[in-house]
Amino acid sequence: MSLLVVGSIALDSVQTPHGVVTDALGGSATYFSYAASYFCPVRLVGVVGEDFPVAHRELLNSRGIDTSGLVVEKGGSTFRWSGKYEGDMNSADTLEVHLNVLGTFDPELPASFTDTPFVFLANGSPAMQRKVLKQTKTRKLVVADTMNLWIEIQRDELVELIREVDGLVLNDGEARMLTQEINLVSAGQKVLDMGPSFVIIKKGEHGAMFLSREETFVMPAFPLADVVDPTGAGDSFAGGFMGYLASVGSTDPTSLKKAMAYGTVVASFNVQDFSLRRFQRTDRAEIDRRLDTYRSMMSF
Amino acid sequence: MSLLVVGSIALDSVQTPHGVVTDALGGSATYFSYAASYFCPVRLVGVVGEDFPVAHRELLNSRGIDTSGLVVEKGGSTFRWSGKYEGDMNSADTLEVHLNVLGTFDPELPASFTDTPFVFLANGSPAMQRKVLKQTKTRKLVVADTMNLWIEIQRDELVELIREVDGLVLNDGEARMLTQEINLVSAGQKVLDMGPSFVIIKKGEHGAMFLSREETFVMPAFPLADVVDPTGAGDSFAGGFMGYLASVGSTDPTSLKKAMAYGTVVASFNVQDFSLRRFQRTDRAEIDRRLDTYRSMMSF
Repeated sequence: MSLLVVGSIALDSVQTPHGVVTDALGGSATYFSYAASYFCPVRLVGVVGEDFPVAHRELLNSRGIDTSGLVVEKGGSTFRWSGKYEGDMNSADTLEVHLNVLGTFDPELPASFTDTPFVFLANGSPAMQRKVLKQTKTRKLVVADTMNLWIEIQRDELVELIREVDGLVLNDGEARMLTQEINLVSAGQKVLDMGPSFVIIKKGEHGAMFLSREETFVMPAFPLADVVDPTGAGDSFAGGFMGYLASVGSTDPTSLKKAMAYGTVVASFNVQDFSLRRFQRTDRAEIDRRLDTYRSMMSF
Repeated sequence: MSLLVVGSIALDSVQTPHGVVTDALGGSATYFSYAASYFCPVRLVGVVGEDFPVAHRELLNSRGIDTSGLVVEKGGSTFRWSGKYEGDMNSADTLEVHLNVLGTFDPELPASFTDTPFVFLANGSPAMQRKVLKQTKTRKLVVADTMNLWIEIQRDELVELIREVDGLVLNDGEARMLTQEINLVSAGQKVLDMGPSFVIIKKGEHGAMFLSREETFVMPAFPLADVVDPTGAGDSFAGGFMGYLASVGSTDPTSLKKAMAYGTVVASFNVQDFSLRRFQRTDRAEIDRRLDTYRSMMSF
């Protein structure tokens, strides 16, 4: 089945202890769609400026990603983010943000996208995410990401959104901020009380926790000595997770758990180089081999 | 097979967001031996003062722990530690330490203990740990714990110790301090280069990483909403780990991995109440049921 993602397309400038990139292809919808493209047909909705290199769109198309929902705003500039990672690289220091065309992004789904069964609302204002949701017609699974900013300034809209989606993805600090619970299991349970069927709490280098009414489990990150750039890890995780679910067309507990494992493994490739570079050097067969390794790591 | 532990016996005063205890039974060798007692015969070597309650020794004896190596120093006071946990409870603020009889502890193994095949050197000065090691005759597996203090003030002795043991257990911050590597996989590999067959890096609420020349894997902590007091979690982990290995009399990779899982599960019981209280309400059957749950959590 096909998978729709609505989110940001960015030109990222990133510094880590392992190097620097300038105006590299990034953004939540970019990482998500590239990661998901190993599993299923992906439909991308986003906005860029006239400065967005043709080669970047071609790269996405080369993975079979449908970019007919990618709007090029005349006279506009693409969203730019620059950040720096130090030490354990668990969080970025944002150096500069230029929203540019993203600041007035009011996504309209192409008619051919409104029946997409699997939908991912990448991080964005809850008001915008809800407007997108209203444009979808037949949905099998809707998952949303969010961030601390929206918990602070659009909490009511966010609470409404959480009520409307099937799954919510957020990181540990955001889960604590949203629920005022320090213990992550308790925080996750409070999110479930807000409406969704499941919640995924991302813990950076420590993996991710999944909670539903039926079960709670943690999947550790795939251990790597060569973590080069964590940018996009969370969106790559979500892309692998949703991509696998769309590929099997199912949301039963067994599929959700395997999707968590795929998300973890796909994210582990992403962090091994800047931007989409490591993804460009992998394929589904290598992802499946690492999944097998990951499975055997946790078998006892 | 039997298991020897040499380490501290303490009277702990602990504050957490969930309550307070005063002069409760604690110490590395206490948590370790109680945790290991679910699996194999345990021999404990330590020192206490005349103020050490008889009931505490009886509690250890009631689990079959051989306390004939527990020295009561005349006129002395038992080691006391008091600490406070806040927020995510990942680390304690030490409020007071009174070494008392532990300050001059020079452990001598009872003759009947020198042939114990499995040996755990709980956290203590590397010089002391090495003196104990020299007293052991036939050893199948020796594992040592350490802490930041010894990395700072007895680094040379610690390096010698690490060369002599089969396995080293330390936490993430200590691994980084010892090796000057921020990435934990790289840090673990550097520890392996120092001599031991394996290293276990404890990550608190995020579980533990195992590294040997053959494999690297992470086991997440068992997810719990009711974490009451993390004191002794690392020693309980080590007790479950070594106890299981001693019970099967093996140190092959399959046994080591299952031991990591048992250590994780045993530690999860420990943190659910203060001191040894939760341990006192469990048994091997319940531990095995949680191990089954843990296994199914990570099966996909």
